[in-house]
Amino acid sequence: MLPPFTSLDDFRNQLAQAKGVDAAATAGAAARNGQLTKPPGALGRLEDLAIWYGGWRGSDRPEIAAPQVIIFAGNHGVTAQGVSAFPPEVTAQMVINFEHGGAAINQLAKLAGARMDVHALDLDTPVQDFTQAPAMREAELLAALQAGWNAVDPTADLLVVGEMGIGNTTPAAALAFALFGGDAADWTGRGTGVDDASLANKTRVVAEGVAMHGAVIKDGLDALACLGGREIAAMAGAIAAARLLHIPVILDGFICCAAAACLLRTSATALDHAVAGHQSAESAHPALLKELGKEPLLSLGLRLGEGSGAALAIQVLKGAVACHSGMATFAEAGVTDG
Amino acid sequence: MLPPFTSLDDFRNQLAQAKGVDAAATAGAAARNGQLTKPPGALGRLEDLAIWYGGWRGSDRPEIAAPQVIIFAGNHGVTAQGVSAFPPEVTAQMVINFEHGGAAINQLAKLAGARMDVHALDLDTPVQDFTQAPAMREAELLAALQAGWNAVDPTADLLVVGEMGIGNTTPAAALAFALFGGDAADWTGRGTGVDDASLANKTRVVAEGVAMHGAVIKDGLDALACLGGREIAAMAGAIAAARLLHIPVILDGFICCAAAACLLRTSATALDHAVAGHQSAESAHPALLKELGKEPLLSLGLRLGEGSGAALAIQVLKGAVACHSGMATFAEAGVTDG
Repeated sequence: MLPPFTSLDDFRNQLAQAKGVDAAATAGAAARNGQLTKPPGALGRLEDLAIWYGGWRGSDRPEIAAPQVIIFAGNHGVTAQGVSAFPPEVTAQMVINFEHGGAAINQLAKLAGARMDVHALDLDTPVQDFTQAPAMREAELLAALQAGWNAVDPTADLLVVGEMGIGNTTPAAALAFALFGGDAADWTGRGTGVDDASLANKTRVVAEGVAMHGAVIKDGLDALACLGGREIAAMAGAIAAARLLHIPVILDGFICCAAAACLLRTSATALDHAVAGHQSAESAHPALLKELGKEPLLSLGLRLGEGSGAALAIQVLKGAVACHSGMATFAEAGVTDG
Repeated sequence: MLPPFTSLDDFRNQLAQAKGVDAAATAGAAARNGQLTKPPGALGRLEDLAIWYGGWRGSDRPEIAAPQVIIFAGNHGVTAQGVSAFPPEVTAQMVINFEHGGAAINQLAKLAGARMDVHALDLDTPVQDFTQAPAMREAELLAALQAGWNAVDPTADLLVVGEMGIGNTTPAAALAFALFGGDAADWTGRGTGVDDASLANKTRVVAEGVAMHGAVIKDGLDALACLGGREIAAMAGAIAAARLLHIPVILDGFICCAAAACLLRTSATALDHAVAGHQSAESAHPALLKELGKEPLLSLGLRLGEGSGAALAIQVLKGAVACHSGMATFAEAGVTDG
């Protein structure tokens, strides 16, 4: 386990000082890639992925043997504003479904050979409705970041973080609006499937929250405290811990990317170890990915959360690394180079 | 094994009369999909894929347990026209690389848990240069279709066909041009990476071939005989056999799709059991996919052939089927439906 952090400023400092990618391993992986039995560039993005992964793992011939999927669950006072098509008790019901193996993420994690952990964060005490007060007090935010930080297995070699939290596309939209500007409507989508009237209401809620708290938000952690939720903060804590541990991360959909955005707006290099697993059907996800500077690996119309799109994308990264590390070179295979 | 076909007309007839998807299984799978613990439609294309797959396998709760990847290799007289960046002896060298497990497709097939077979088709006797004569005589085409037809394991539950054949983006472009019209330049791309001068020459070769043979091409099999190659015909034979056996197929890149196009232009329902695994970086692949009416599952800039993109896409289909068949229903999990 990583040493703990003791304050939000300690978290900020550790994130800002985290060591970057291993340049020698990156160069070694790129050199190996150039010798493999294929025309130059013929594996497209798989080649870039394998070199990137090797750089973060410090190896010119890496493998993916121990992926970890962590699901964080949290509840939201803002559901009192009628922002979701599902009632808040579904969060706890779905946690039981995760624990019993019945959810989509269970199937996808199993297929990817990933360890899966579920952390339910004070579901009986939703974070406060951000149209009334900051969502979390400093101690609550610290605890949620810490829960994510401590959930990462230091022996994992790949991380996916997912979430469950009825209503949580609303805080995610508010975070994106607070961090990147524009209009509240630019960032507010239908989530699990609200109708036009509910979407208008949800947009109003997002606008009100950012109007109330915008002035005190100086970085991503401030935004998390004012507008976030425990599961969103825990995802940020886990992604940050993975950054320090040099465990590459595959980002999931809109809510995961909102958590990641809070890190990026806390330290500019916070997401160098992360790729975007997929582009979801949530309307603002493409714009959010653009703000993160990430090109999604998959675009299959998913909008489930739970880490589902990222877990599916593990297979793409595994394929990239398997080709890179398993293929013969031109010299080994006796194949004439072009 | 399927019963053999005895003539090109027998092949045409068997393909035209092949039984379609199981409507009851499709309906059953759609009904199950509606009860799973997720908001309606939240798994996007994965939901459509699972229902489609269940329909073809005759099950409302299918599994993918035995995927098969088959690589066909062939050589092309048209390489004498300087259409490839690699010399023709690389075809046989890569067959040895496949047999020794050193190619990209070996790694991707292994990752997908797929059986992999390699069929080298008369590599010492390239098909004729189609700018001089039809590529294959009728008996040669029949033998190549038959090789593909017989290569399909009837106990497989998913099929990927790939190819190796230095120069074979040229016949693939000629097939697409002959079947779908437009200009030769619309269908001619850089293959393994030819320069501008070679691309202009390749375009001329494609135009000459279609000008010479266009008048006698009445359907896809005629096109295969005049402009194709053994590995392309074998892919068509295998995809056709899978159609009769109700084994769903994931199509690979430009050359695989050219083979599939020959079937589609022989029987309009020939590809109902097929999905497009990916969109390759070969410039005309998007247009060819459009002619096939197929939306690719992946778009990662691959342009390797060998079935590599389709083999990677096996994981997407496996994910879809795993979710569909493994998830709990709302009733089973005690989760409140929205």
